[in-house]
Amino acid sequence: MQSAIRIIGIDPGLRRTGWGVIETLGNSLRFVASGTVTSDGDMDLASRLCQLHDGLADVVHSHQPDEAAVEQTFVNKDAVATLKLGQARGIAMLVPARAGLQVSEYAPNAVKKAVIGVGHAEKKQIHMMLKILMPKAEFKGDDAADALAIAICHAHNRGGARMRMAALAG
Amino acid sequence: MQSAIRIIGIDPGLRRTGWGVIETLGNSLRFVASGTVTSDGDMDLASRLCQLHDGLADVVHSHQPDEAAVEQTFVNKDAVATLKLGQARGIAMLVPARAGLQVSEYAPNAVKKAVIGVGHAEKKQIHMMLKILMPKAEFKGDDAADALAIAICHAHNRGGARMRMAALAG
Repeated sequence: MQSAIRIIGIDPGLRRTGWGVIETLGNSLRFVASGTVTSDGDMDLASRLCQLHDGLADVVHSHQPDEAAVEQTFVNKDAVATLKLGQARGIAMLVPARAGLQVSEYAPNAVKKAVIGVGHAEKKQIHMMLKILMPKAEFKGDDAADALAIAICHAHNRGGARMRMAALAG
Repeated sequence: MQSAIRIIGIDPGLRRTGWGVIETLGNSLRFVASGTVTSDGDMDLASRLCQLHDGLADVVHSHQPDEAAVEQTFVNKDAVATLKLGQARGIAMLVPARAGLQVSEYAPNAVKKAVIGVGHAEKKQIHMMLKILMPKAEFKGDDAADALAIAICHAHNRGGARMRMAALAG
């Protein structure tokens, strides 16, 4: 019997890093949990990176995913913002890798295409589609929603065959 | 009696992260060790970040620094390179912070000014000045030399008083 694969999607950011855990079995998806890890903007950078590390390590420990996926993005024309994002992204990739997980990267367009069917989509469209794909999905805010979309993108791409995006009952 | 403060300087990079450990006591500097942690360019990004993490964690464990300093830099006009550097830099700041160290950041010009006396300097000038400031200093390559310069910059700036850059005998 085939067993479900548990996937964590991570949308990295220094202030807010979204995460979403789903299970995929055959053609079906199941929502497990989602949330946001935050860092305190009044603290120094190294302490903020520690906060992200510890928060994500807790999530990985609690939900025991089998595979991880992180969005592959940068901030155009703003080197300072890109460096900040890079630092948060380094932590977002390190934590699952140190837990022994394979970490895949997906471009934002690939994530939108996996969820909506096209490479460009509004945040609202992603929220709506998540609810259609996983009726029991709960997420607060764009970061957790984006993280769930990244996890779905990985579920979609990890197998060779095109996945039918059917919600798993139960 | 005042005790020596041990400082680790880190020059982050995804391929090569330089590190240098020195001790400062009053106005004097003493070389402790330096080296380079590398990651394997043929491996995936998450595994490379793990390599940097584990290598730096070994260095911190071996040399037990009291304080850390990391260069604050970004690659102008190249978002992909800046993102890569940011990811390595996230790890370079996380490792000492998780070990309980305060991590200070210095701009490249501040580092050069602390070592050479001016904000612009050739690599060769930095190598020569390191040998004058710390005759027993050993370093292979620019990354380890830059890391030692960052450590000296922190030694220079951590105290209020201007430091006389004298080499400590012994």
